[in-house]
Parts: sequence; structure tokens; C-alpha cells
Amino acid sequence: MRVLRLKNPPSVVGYAAVVGGKEYDGPLGSEFDLHDETGEFGMDTWEKSESEMQRLALNLALAKGKCAEEMPEVIFAGDLMNQCTGSAYGLLGFGKPYFGLYGACSTFAEATVLSSMLISAGYFDNAAAISSSHFCSAERQFRFPLEYGGQRAPTAQWTATAAGAMILRSSGNGPYITEVAPGVIVDKGINDINNMGAAMAPAAIDTLTAYFTETGKTPDDFDMILTGDLGLEGHGITLSLMKENGYDMTRVYNDCGLLLYGGDSQDVHCGGSGCGCSASVICGHILKRFARGELKNVLYLATGALMSPGMIKQGATIPGIAHLVHFSADKNCREG
Amino acid sequence: MRVLRLKNPPSVVGYAAVVGGKEYDGPLGSEFDLHDETGEFGMDTWEKSESEMQRLALNLALAKGKCAEEMPEVIFAGDLMNQCTGSAYGLLGFGKPYFGLYGACSTFAEATVLSSMLISAGYFDNAAAISSSHFCSAERQFRFPLEYGGQRAPTAQWTATAAGAMILRSSGNGPYITEVAPGVIVDKGINDINNMGAAMAPAAIDTLTAYFTETGKTPDDFDMILTGDLGLEGHGITLSLMKENGYDMTRVYNDCGLLLYGGDSQDVHCGGSGCGCSASVICGHILKRFARGELKNVLYLATGALMSPGMIKQGATIPGIAHLVHFSADKNCREG
Repeated sequence: MRVLRLKNPPSVVGYAAVVGGKEYDGPLGSEFDLHDETGEFGMDTWEKSESEMQRLALNLALAKGKCAEEMPEVIFAGDLMNQCTGSAYGLLGFGKPYFGLYGACSTFAEATVLSSMLISAGYFDNAAAISSSHFCSAERQFRFPLEYGGQRAPTAQWTATAAGAMILRSSGNGPYITEVAPGVIVDKGINDINNMGAAMAPAAIDTLTAYFTETGKTPDDFDMILTGDLGLEGHGITLSLMKENGYDMTRVYNDCGLLLYGGDSQDVHCGGSGCGCSASVICGHILKRFARGELKNVLYLATGALMSPGMIKQGATIPGIAHLVHFSADKNCREG
Repeated sequence: MRVLRLKNPPSVVGYAAVVGGKEYDGPLGSEFDLHDETGEFGMDTWEKSESEMQRLALNLALAKGKCAEEMPEVIFAGDLMNQCTGSAYGLLGFGKPYFGLYGACSTFAEATVLSSMLISAGYFDNAAAISSSHFCSAERQFRFPLEYGGQRAPTAQWTATAAGAMILRSSGNGPYITEVAPGVIVDKGINDINNMGAAMAPAAIDTLTAYFTETGKTPDDFDMILTGDLGLEGHGITLSLMKENGYDMTRVYNDCGLLLYGGDSQDVHCGGSGCGCSASVICGHILKRFARGELKNVLYLATGALMSPGMIKQGATIPGIAHLVHFSADKNCREG
């Protein structure tokens, strides 16, 4: 069984998203809690800016959730940078038990899956799930040295300058995390570093198919099915292959990488990506839509591409993974 | 509360360690399950060799534990390489739910803490905890380009070429994981990349002090207290500062980085390090000593240094973390 139904579904009690200029200029701009047009956040290197975004996102989420000073009891966090330094340095000052994660762009869901399970089991009363990415630190990490005049491929995605933090607690007014499903690493042989959507889509399809098969639910049971950041290319592949598998998601399916930016007008090609993309869309937008009563049931699958620049240079293909989280306004929700 | 007592302590049911030539030549050499004098493990790059070591360690642990084909139900793994590719590529073929972790040299304990909690809570019947490091991939990652004739500092440690895998299950003959304590990120301002022991010791002291304070136990309650890989420098600091805190660990305290190599004769300076160091010492040596009845109660704290080469170049200091695991031959052990 891949799908784990939580006996005591934890509630979201606080959430915040911090973004850069391009993300603020996008269609969700007004939803985000804090932005810096320069992306610098007062720091003198991009890596330190990314750490600062995590620190700000967690502080804001705690403040917005009116959390007691001793919260969070534990932190689950990660990012794209080598040795996950965005999280370690950004969250150092909180002095809380810390689990560092690496799930690439699936990290926010991975953090949510683990914290939900441990709260539901009673180990912790509350926990924070956080992840981030920064366009400039990711360029330095994954695409340095950049060629003069180098053009981005049509299938490329734009690494979001964004961080999202969510506080989960054993009690609250929801939305609740009612089910989770950890991802399996899937590699279908894609080795085009400019086409992450195609590399990660098979993992999303694997997790979604397992979910629908095990639960007997269908896409119609949900207001929205939201992948992390497959972008235009991966969204199309997932929609089409899921339909072949017997699950028509046309009505409800969207992708955080498509929601974050304004398509052609922002020149992001296939859409957004990065650990901060779905973290900020969930914490800046989706959870607000729950609060406004516009959403009741959302399946969120964050997808991650688990390669490194070094492995690609060695001819490796790109393994993907997709962790699933079911957000529901109804704590005891038995149907989707 | 930092210390979590597990209601249904999971049992170790399989374990294996895979090492390179230098580790095989060390004092624990005959304890390891598999070694390759060249460290290549049949692969044409060091990064692929490291992935192969994880694959071999997990396969051997499953075989030695006579595990059913559907095991493990879930995998917790990580390594030191950028984007944790040692784990993602090495474990891809198992097709199991996967949680990627980044805790630097604390990763094996982090994986053990999380899998123990989730098994005890009934989410999974069994799980695998795995981590690895490889001297050559770590040199490329952390110390490239190397200078001609560059000398290693006296406080430097040697990154182990080693992988360890452990299978935990809800039932078995032990040893059992009876308690765990997640680490807090601690940074005391050390910025010498050649002195990881000093950078990580404060985190070990923080976790150990929390453990003894909360449980009321003392070092005398244990056969052994074993840090991950603080090496000679960090071992001395920890022993001395814990004594100042009122806990004399002289009789029982050792360090995986000191056990793995033969001191001066192997020219490793302060001892071993790397995610594979304590993983292989636990899975190759400590668990065998439990099986031989030589150990009954061991506190294992793996320490991790959460910096990256890039952050050090930017003038950052080195944050450390230490996750604690209590191995006990007695499932219901109330005393240490």
C-alpha cells in the first residue's frame, strides 16, 4: 500500500510565502506575504538571500498562525542547493529539532508527508514544513558557467525565487492533511536537462495511478489535482497518459509551475520550477483559497528530479519522484 | 522534550557494510561484508561507485536478514554528494517508496530516527536506513581542485569509502531501537573546514546533555556511547566538555571515526568521517557485537556538519547537528 490514511489528520494553522520580483509580477503576486523586487533580501550573496527567505517564511507563518513561542516543535526542510545549505543556515537561529531533506522540487511535499505522519502518530504536537529555491543560486548551482547569449530551450522551466512555510498542528480549523503517499523513484531514461517536465511526469503518473487504484477514487472527487512543477510539457504528458490509464483529469488538473507565472508574457517558457515553486503556490495561494471557501479537496503532488549537474555530465539519466498530500476542508473526509 | 521513547521498539533484522581498501585494511576490516580494494566497485566514475556501494549494501542487508522479496516497504537514505545522487541513483532499482535525506555525516542516524518512529507508529512494518560516502567523490565535491603537494591539516579527517544499510522491522530478535532524539542545528562559529570535529562537537554535546537531563540516565547506564565521526579532535572536546557538564563518559565513550582506521599507521590524521563512516561501523561492527552478546546498550549519535564548500568560500561558519539513537538488546529496557 502506498497511500497512508492519517488517523488524526493534522491541521494547517499557519502558512506564508516569500517571493522575488518576477514571482510578485506574476498572476499570484498579490497573494504572497512578502516580496523583494531585487531578490536580495538584504544579503550580499544569492545563497544567503535564499536562506533569508526561508527564515522570513517561517517567521511569517508562525506570526500569521499566532503560534506560541515554543512552536514549531520540529522542522522539516530542504532546498536545491549543494548540501541543502538554504535550509541549514536559514533555520539555524530557531534552535529547534531539524530534519534536513533532499527531494529536489518534491521537498515541500516530502516535508509535509513526514510531519503529518509524525503529528498524527502523536510524536509531536506541531511541526513546520519549509522549502525554497532562488533563481540566481540555482543558476550558479546547476547552470554555471552560463554561455554568453545562450538561449533557453523551449522546454526549459524557470527556477522560482520563492520560499513557502507551513505550520501543521494536531488540532485546528483546517484544512487538514487526511492522506499522504510517499513517492517511488522512477527513471524512464530522459537525459535532457532542459526538459525536467518530461523527466518527472512518469513519477507523478506512478503516484497518481497508485493513489486512484488503492483508494478507488477518481479525479472527479477533487476540486483540484495539482502537480508540483511539471510545467507545460510535463502537465501535457501527465494529462494525456493519465487519460490513457483511464483517469480523465481535464477538469481539475493544474500545475504550480503554470500558476506561478504569466505564461508567454513573462518569458518563462514551460513555467516555474524549484523547491520554492510549489511551496509558495501552496502557502501563498492554495491555502488562501481554502480559507476563502473556494477549495475543499485538493490532491497535491510535488515532483522532484533527483539528478545533479555532475551526474548529467557523466551521461546519467534523470530519476524523478512524486510525493502526494491530500488537503481536505473536512477532517473526517472519507470520500475524495 | 527532545527524547522520544518508542512505544513499539522496532528490531534490527538485517544489516550490511560495504567498504573500500583503506577501510578493509583498518582494524575492523574483517567485520565488513564486502570490500573492493580499488574502491571502484566496477564503475567508471567515483560517483557511480558510491551509488553502487549503496545498492550492494542494501542488497546484502536484505539477504543477510532473509528478508521477503517485498521488503523493504520504504527507504530512508542520503549521502554527501551534491543533490544526494549517491542514494537516488543507487536505490532507484528497488522501486520502493523513498525519502531522501540530507544530514551530512548525521544521515545514518537521521534515517534510523525517522524509520524507527514510523515503524513504531504502525505506518510501516519495515524500513531500510542507508547512507554512504566515498573518499574520491567527496574529494571531488568538497576539495576540488586539489593543490599539487597540498598537505592535509593535522585536524583533518579522512572521508570513508563506505556504505551501511540496516533493515528495521516491527518484530524481531533485536537489538531494538528504544529511544531516539532528533538534533538541533548548533553553530559555535567554527569556520575551519579542516576541523570538522570542533565544528560538530557542540551539536553532540547539546543532544547528549538533553538526553541525560530528560531521561535522568548517566553514562554509566551504557556499554558504549558512540559519536558518528568527531574524530580525535571532536572526541576530546566532547569528552572534556561533557565532564564539565557533570557527565564523565571516559569509560564508555568512543567515536566511529576513531574505530574505523588504525590511527597513525594509516595516516588519516584525526580519523574517519563521511556519511558512510558511522553507517559502516554500526552495520559492520557494532551490530555484530550485539549479536555476539558483547554489547547490550549503546547510545549512538551521528554528527553532521551542514556547510557546503560554496558557503565556506562566502565566509560562513559551520553549523552542526547530532541525531541520537538508543540501541538496546532489551525491547522493554527502561533503564539505559
